[in-house]
Amino acid sequence: MDIAALKDAHPDHWQKACAIRVLTLDAVAAANSGHSGMPMGMADVATVLFEKHLKFDAANPGWPDRDRFILSAGHGSMLLYSLLHLTGSPDMTLEQLKDFRQLGSITAGHPEYGHAMGVETTTGPLGQGIANAVGFAIAEEHLRATWGPKIVDHYTYCIAGDGCLMEGVSQEAIALAGRQQLSRLIVLWDDNGITIDGKVALADITDQKMRFQASGWNVLECDGHDPEAIDAALTAAKSSDRPTMIACKTHIALGSSAQDTSKGHGALTDAQLIADTRAAYGWEHGPFEIPAGIKSAWEAIGARGAADRAEWDARLAALSDRKRAEFARAQSGELPKKLAKALRDYRAQLVADAPKVATRSASEMALNVINPILTETLGGSADLTGSNNTKSKEMTVFEPGNRKGRYIHYGVREHGMAAAMNGIALHGGVRPYGGTFMCFTDYARPSMRLSALMGVPVVYVMTHDSIGLGEDGPTHQPVEHLAMLRATPNTLVFRPADAVETAEAWELALQQTGTPSVLALSRQGLPTLRKVAKPANLTAGGAYVLAEAEAKRQAVLMATGSEVAVAMAARDLLEAEGIGTRVVSMPCMELFARADEKYRRKVLPSGAVRVGIEAGVQQGWDRWLCGERGREAKAGFIGMDSFGASAPAGELFEHFGITAAATAEKVKSLL
Amino acid sequence: MDIAALKDAHPDHWQKACAIRVLTLDAVAAANSGHSGMPMGMADVATVLFEKHLKFDAANPGWPDRDRFILSAGHGSMLLYSLLHLTGSPDMTLEQLKDFRQLGSITAGHPEYGHAMGVETTTGPLGQGIANAVGFAIAEEHLRATWGPKIVDHYTYCIAGDGCLMEGVSQEAIALAGRQQLSRLIVLWDDNGITIDGKVALADITDQKMRFQASGWNVLECDGHDPEAIDAALTAAKSSDRPTMIACKTHIALGSSAQDTSKGHGALTDAQLIADTRAAYGWEHGPFEIPAGIKSAWEAIGARGAADRAEWDARLAALSDRKRAEFARAQSGELPKKLAKALRDYRAQLVADAPKVATRSASEMALNVINPILTETLGGSADLTGSNNTKSKEMTVFEPGNRKGRYIHYGVREHGMAAAMNGIALHGGVRPYGGTFMCFTDYARPSMRLSALMGVPVVYVMTHDSIGLGEDGPTHQPVEHLAMLRATPNTLVFRPADAVETAEAWELALQQTGTPSVLALSRQGLPTLRKVAKPANLTAGGAYVLAEAEAKRQAVLMATGSEVAVAMAARDLLEAEGIGTRVVSMPCMELFARADEKYRRKVLPSGAVRVGIEAGVQQGWDRWLCGERGREAKAGFIGMDSFGASAPAGELFEHFGITAAATAEKVKSLL
Repeated sequence: MDIAALKDAHPDHWQKACAIRVLTLDAVAAANSGHSGMPMGMADVATVLFEKHLKFDAANPGWPDRDRFILSAGHGSMLLYSLLHLTGSPDMTLEQLKDFRQLGSITAGHPEYGHAMGVETTTGPLGQGIANAVGFAIAEEHLRATWGPKIVDHYTYCIAGDGCLMEGVSQEAIALAGRQQLSRLIVLWDDNGITIDGKVALADITDQKMRFQASGWNVLECDGHDPEAIDAALTAAKSSDRPTMIACKTHIALGSSAQDTSKGHGALTDAQLIADTRAAYGWEHGPFEIPAGIKSAWEAIGARGAADRAEWDARLAALSDRKRAEFARAQSGELPKKLAKALRDYRAQLVADAPKVATRSASEMALNVINPILTETLGGSADLTGSNNTKSKEMTVFEPGNRKGRYIHYGVREHGMAAAMNGIALHGGVRPYGGTFMCFTDYARPSMRLSALMGVPVVYVMTHDSIGLGEDGPTHQPVEHLAMLRATPNTLVFRPADAVETAEAWELALQQTGTPSVLALSRQGLPTLRKVAKPANLTAGGAYVLAEAEAKRQAVLMATGSEVAVAMAARDLLEAEGIGTRVVSMPCMELFARADEKYRRKVLPSGAVRVGIEAGVQQGWDRWLCGERGREAKAGFIGMDSFGASAPAGELFEHFGITAAATAEKVKSLL
Repeated sequence: MDIAALKDAHPDHWQKACAIRVLTLDAVAAANSGHSGMPMGMADVATVLFEKHLKFDAANPGWPDRDRFILSAGHGSMLLYSLLHLTGSPDMTLEQLKDFRQLGSITAGHPEYGHAMGVETTTGPLGQGIANAVGFAIAEEHLRATWGPKIVDHYTYCIAGDGCLMEGVSQEAIALAGRQQLSRLIVLWDDNGITIDGKVALADITDQKMRFQASGWNVLECDGHDPEAIDAALTAAKSSDRPTMIACKTHIALGSSAQDTSKGHGALTDAQLIADTRAAYGWEHGPFEIPAGIKSAWEAIGARGAADRAEWDARLAALSDRKRAEFARAQSGELPKKLAKALRDYRAQLVADAPKVATRSASEMALNVINPILTETLGGSADLTGSNNTKSKEMTVFEPGNRKGRYIHYGVREHGMAAAMNGIALHGGVRPYGGTFMCFTDYARPSMRLSALMGVPVVYVMTHDSIGLGEDGPTHQPVEHLAMLRATPNTLVFRPADAVETAEAWELALQQTGTPSVLALSRQGLPTLRKVAKPANLTAGGAYVLAEAEAKRQAVLMATGSEVAVAMAARDLLEAEGIGTRVVSMPCMELFARADEKYRRKVLPSGAVRVGIEAGVQQGWDRWLCGERGREAKAGFIGMDSFGASAPAGELFEHFGITAAATAEKVKSLL
């Protein structure tokens, strides 16, 4: 690459882009780890994007109508941190760059949402960012239709690398975006031909342009080091009626001796290499030293959107008080005040009616109460709408001709759905939920982990939550999934026992602002077990006494979901033999763990035999079986220790011994 | 669709295909559940494939050189079961079809590997079959190069539906197959335009033919109900130098009133609909009744390959005794006799040398011993070769010009890699292993579950197994993953503490014939802790006493992997204070759980304080902390209860309190 020619052709541009490159070299050298090559390769593209196109106001990184910039190739985090520092983002000080990848800094190895302002999403696990970006663009389309373009009118830009495009989730994202004609989505592909193992061609010969075209994208290309070509491509992309992919031909680790090699992907820390590269750049300043002229040019870019932002503020202020308050409420994630009462009334009605319904149907019933009030929900399913019961009565389908639609057909794309929901939630102003079979949390898993890590309150509606699914067999029967989800930090796993608990779980899930929730719902019908309507949401405690012992208490049965009815039936058997038995419904272990110790001890007193019942593996139950303060009682577990089988559900519960009789026997063997 | 015209044009063909259709209708009606539409739509394609192209001998479903037939659209299981029954597969009786989806039958809702002969892989979770098929085709290419075309020379056929192609893993599979020019792979796309939620176009407008072409495939199309067109396409596909996708335009639920609708996807059980459909077909026989003429025509198809198979037997018999024995050994999964001695000698050398190495490096060292002896291994990595240390010295790269190569660059495709490895293992004759970062087990998860469900001995080499990964931060630091994997039935999770245990873990993983293994390996260097070389593989017991208490035993520390060294250092601190402390290394909880109770009680005696140490969540440890027979001692845990952070590894262990000092304090607080 002829660096001199690049410099000479666009000297001002060169200086600005060069600032990104040297800050990257300096930060990676200081950390002695990181990824130098990507920021060095994409600095020109990013510079043009920020200078000429991205709508943002560096002083106000939270401006709701900003363009979103998603760095899907998250290992190139120094690109983003450099841009934030140079443009003057409030918290991205030079000290933070010097503390790149150090404990307590906001400059983690990969961009972490919630650490630095301006980091729109956590990236690093490849392919996530581009799939998040689809969600951001969906949210924008929906909100623009809902609030009008005076309030919502922006683009989503995403830089994706070869690794992102090799990950399968990218295909799900690309196809969904193409179908939805998300014309405000612009993906900049860092086409550098290099991955960690060597040339991309070692593992891939895909014609990416053709691949995007096949899914209905507008495809452009440019020399990723030519600012005029980049600008022209971005300009063209913005006027397309379809999502645009711009193939930016770049040189990884531009200008270094590691240029165009896999070595250049990683940390360039060799002092001589760094010195040689700076010399090639004609950069004569010290480490972390940005000349005032270059910094001020960047700060001017950072301030470019301030007037736009002020005008937007004025337009927002011009809305009616009611609308403005509603906009602020939806942005904050706060629930409408009347939702609590509506749900309370609905729960009371359920107790009165005592329907026998699958909790997946109960979830739909709850959504029929929630969605007309909480109008910012965006529901959906990965092609299991009728099974997941995620489409409430009034919902229409979100599509190019109906952007106000609140229901998304995600297709058979659990992973893409979860990643898009993360993007929708991160955008703000909307509340996404989506469904698939519980077993296929496996497919969505990488994005579900990121929901938890980022703390975004996505609601996963996971139906067919056990062998109760029946004939579809072991591939479709979750066994280990509750344990997996419970093992994940910052995730609420609800497994409601009846329609009342399902409504309570929905309420709690929607109350979260920093935690995703999973609703594990039955395929099969379950009786209403709650006998008394109370104003309080009993699921909020995580576990509660559903039925007290009548005879002297000798046993405590703990169960979740469909097995609470098993516990109740076992209680009948035991009480008939004079064995006093308490039944504890435990719809959310995480909330129970958070409850105060006094409450926990009240629900699970010592001195009685404890048996846990759940049609899943035991892992995760021991804390409650052993007792938190040492083994407080003999304990046992009724559940699964193998994969399931294909047969009618009732036969499976018998076959695997998850029955009232087996539970009663277990209790008696422990007494 | 003009059924009469189809019948008239090819009456013999029609009868045969019709037999599949009515058996499907009958079995689904008997089960009152299942998926009718796909077998009804693809019966013509399958009939032509089996009649004219597929190399198989129904009487010998295990013939190693048979063509493989993979039903990726696994919900259409009755297509496969019908074909197996009609062609005369030994165990697929009519009774089994009548017991479709019933407990104890071999005709599960989705095809389950190991249930019926002729089911090459478990499918149902969409996209898995097509990705398995890539693995089958890789195995065939490699074995053909290794053994010559007289012994190995076959095709892999795969039927995939719209759902399979929407799943991201299909893109990983398609791109890998295209890069590898797997010309013996032929995918038949059931292009019926329908998914569960409705028309495919609801969620996808992808031009699938263009998409496959973009990844280097040969693409053909045909009317999926015209046997001549199907035959011509298959004939053309077989002579391509690239993998072929044939777009078969079909009508789901052909000939029924549910044809071309999403209703037709599911269970057609309405008696009138079934009667009407049979009438439209001109099928005048009772339920499950196949006229003798049609059955014998099908059985002739089943016997078509018998002569081929006999000739193949003769060619195999003509091999030298040594080669024939070696072929049989590799097929059986048995290890070469000399491997055990080589590994024993290697372990003794390690004890003598006591290297301080990361267990990922120790894994490479072990592979340098294993791979020259176990020559059927096929290694690989999802673009992290240098980090996963999966490429041993003598390995060359598997690619079109070097089919004998034993190392696969899978690309940034953890999911596709895992699914391909399932296919490679299922093919037989080869032993796949592959690596990525432990955290990205998330991406591979759906296929890892299927490894366990099917019982295929794939070895997952998962490096960078904790916060010890350091600066890359929480997106790359596993916390919950050990618990997730341990929650999964039939999975061995090894977390070796040093180079000796790493070699032992490899040996045990390779000894498995019905269970996948995960090796959780450190990024950071670890000391050799084993002080005495023993012939026995101590990891085989799952846990063992690494260091006995010197003073009177008051504490037992249990740890895995990098935390065993922490336990040893804590023991030093405690012994210095006169607190006798045993250290138990626990490299594989599953094997420890399988060990006899006497051994378990010997390793974990009651009466001493127990502390578990692992840089992961506590879930999964309670069984050993509580004690299996009730709380046998006070217990505590040192580990993680949140996501990690970005910082140098040493600082992170301090920050999260996973240190010898914290462990010693915990013990003292419990005494």
